[in-house]
Amino acid sequence: MSEARIWHGGDLDEARRLFPQAPEPWIDLSTGINPIAYPVPPLPASLFTRLPSPADHRDLEAAAAEAYGAADAAMVVAAPGTQVLISLLPHLRPRSRVAVLGPTYAEHAHSWRKAEHDVIEVPSLDRLDGASVVVVVNPNNPDGRLLKREDLLDLAEDLRPQGGWLVVDEAFADFDDGESLAPVLPSNAVVLRSFGKTYGLAGLRIGFALAPEPIATKLRSALGPWAVSGPAIETGRTALGDRKWLEAARTARAADARRLDALLSSAADESLRGTILYRLLESPRAPELFQALGEHGIWVRRFQYSSQLLRFGLPSTEVEWQRLETVLARFCYKELSTSLSLSKKEKPRPA
Amino acid sequence: MSEARIWHGGDLDEARRLFPQAPEPWIDLSTGINPIAYPVPPLPASLFTRLPSPADHRDLEAAAAEAYGAADAAMVVAAPGTQVLISLLPHLRPRSRVAVLGPTYAEHAHSWRKAEHDVIEVPSLDRLDGASVVVVVNPNNPDGRLLKREDLLDLAEDLRPQGGWLVVDEAFADFDDGESLAPVLPSNAVVLRSFGKTYGLAGLRIGFALAPEPIATKLRSALGPWAVSGPAIETGRTALGDRKWLEAARTARAADARRLDALLSSAADESLRGTILYRLLESPRAPELFQALGEHGIWVRRFQYSSQLLRFGLPSTEVEWQRLETVLARFCYKELSTSLSLSKKEKPRPA
Repeated sequence: MSEARIWHGGDLDEARRLFPQAPEPWIDLSTGINPIAYPVPPLPASLFTRLPSPADHRDLEAAAAEAYGAADAAMVVAAPGTQVLISLLPHLRPRSRVAVLGPTYAEHAHSWRKAEHDVIEVPSLDRLDGASVVVVVNPNNPDGRLLKREDLLDLAEDLRPQGGWLVVDEAFADFDDGESLAPVLPSNAVVLRSFGKTYGLAGLRIGFALAPEPIATKLRSALGPWAVSGPAIETGRTALGDRKWLEAARTARAADARRLDALLSSAADESLRGTILYRLLESPRAPELFQALGEHGIWVRRFQYSSQLLRFGLPSTEVEWQRLETVLARFCYKELSTSLSLSKKEKPRPA
Repeated sequence: MSEARIWHGGDLDEARRLFPQAPEPWIDLSTGINPIAYPVPPLPASLFTRLPSPADHRDLEAAAAEAYGAADAAMVVAAPGTQVLISLLPHLRPRSRVAVLGPTYAEHAHSWRKAEHDVIEVPSLDRLDGASVVVVVNPNNPDGRLLKREDLLDLAEDLRPQGGWLVVDEAFADFDDGESLAPVLPSNAVVLRSFGKTYGLAGLRIGFALAPEPIATKLRSALGPWAVSGPAIETGRTALGDRKWLEAARTARAADARRLDALLSSAADESLRGTILYRLLESPRAPELFQALGEHGIWVRRFQYSSQLLRFGLPSTEVEWQRLETVLARFCYKELSTSLSLSKKEKPRPA
């Protein structure tokens, strides 16, 4: 409880604390979760009352192997979300030097540090400083930076002689998996795939590690046999098998991302970055924009390492789009007026 | 995947494999799960779509602290079932000598062994052989043996100087918590409490560790922030706050346990043991009884360490009770006839 607090998206309690006067309901754009969820299939009572069977658990892992293009379902370890895998992995290795390519999702460095590894955050893969574990998020959160599969394979190869691991968090790869390591998993790499973000079902808690032996066995052993709930197993295997839904969602969310870029471009100094599920805005006016959005009940993601960044998830309804557009238009108009009146003051009119 | 397979209750796939001709539906008496589940409250879509908030997670832990009589909610760590806690704990200590009071639930010794600790199974707390971690299940599964709270407090005290831990799995303590360590938790003890068994909701995956610092922080750190699903958090905090339901369930299941004892007594050599949620039968005829039950679609729990033991969970409906009674009556009649005809053969009638 005394640990340094990491900011996360999705915490509307924090939004309400910061902006007690904001109108309800809040529009939560602070996560990278698909706002249009996969329809949860009928969940018979037995999924709640009975322990999930080993066969059901295996079926979920087989559906994930198929969806992610993994060569063998034995490489897939299902978990109650990828976060627990991120938190667990550091407990499965002796103390190591760990390089996290950052800035990125903060729980990676945090988890390795809490488990007493020696952690450095590095700005580039050229500066790994002898690390035996390298962690990358690909595409990266929040900036969408995409590393090439070939470069990652080379990196895994470099780490192999010293018994090193390459951990690739592909939480946002489902809608653009061209560089995924899943189909070509090296023997010393772990790929993490998130279910809740793509399928809009973050509350269900499903995630996967794709890992060769002996890492897969270590993970299974630390999680035990029934870590994933019955409702999650049923929903997960149905959704992962539904390629048509995934294709339609990809097209629809890509259109949403373009629409969001168009709205944000007037407030952004640089062109927007990110993935289909979130867009990153960089501007010296980010703190004022955060404030303006918060006062109007729109919660976006700030970052502890830079006040100039704001990450926007996708609105879910036309009402949300309209509210966002209105607040952004007012903000830009106000900024424009201020800068106009400033320039008036700065340059006194010639008499 | 290559690990030695531990038998567990609840695996009807295994039942169908062993008894392919058995009538459906199977009656599953192989678990110690309350067959009359707590009614799942309405689960709004947001529990599935949104990440659980830190406040919701804390509310669940506070409800558990209240239910288990823990002094402080900060000692309570919620997890997706107690199994993951059992599997995780061995990863949070340097290699130790671990004594498991057995025979008991097999996953304890298994988990410590897989994490490369030095594990012994001991028949009594007088024979701990210098162990620095002691694991007990209280009341014990499957035989219901109950250790006194005072003896456990003494044991924790003995382990303290060497930095040792006492792990007490109270999975079946909810219906009889007189000896629970939860209200008097020593600083080097971990108590595990299961939710799914008492509330008949094993598929939801909820369990708790009650642990002092620094063990609680280590567990939280290895699980990460969102290990428990939204539907589980909502159901768990509602159910744990419903003391009336718990009292009524205790009375009803205790009556069920007495009814089961009456049915089983004719097949048992010793008096039946166990807890309110399962009864343990000991008899040299256990293998034949297992066979007879299986052929009639009734699945009970066998044990790898003794062929003379069978554990029976509680039937859930009058139809199940009747089917069980019929199979038991036939079995005892057949056994009786066989032993009568044997005695006839053995002792030829005087001419």
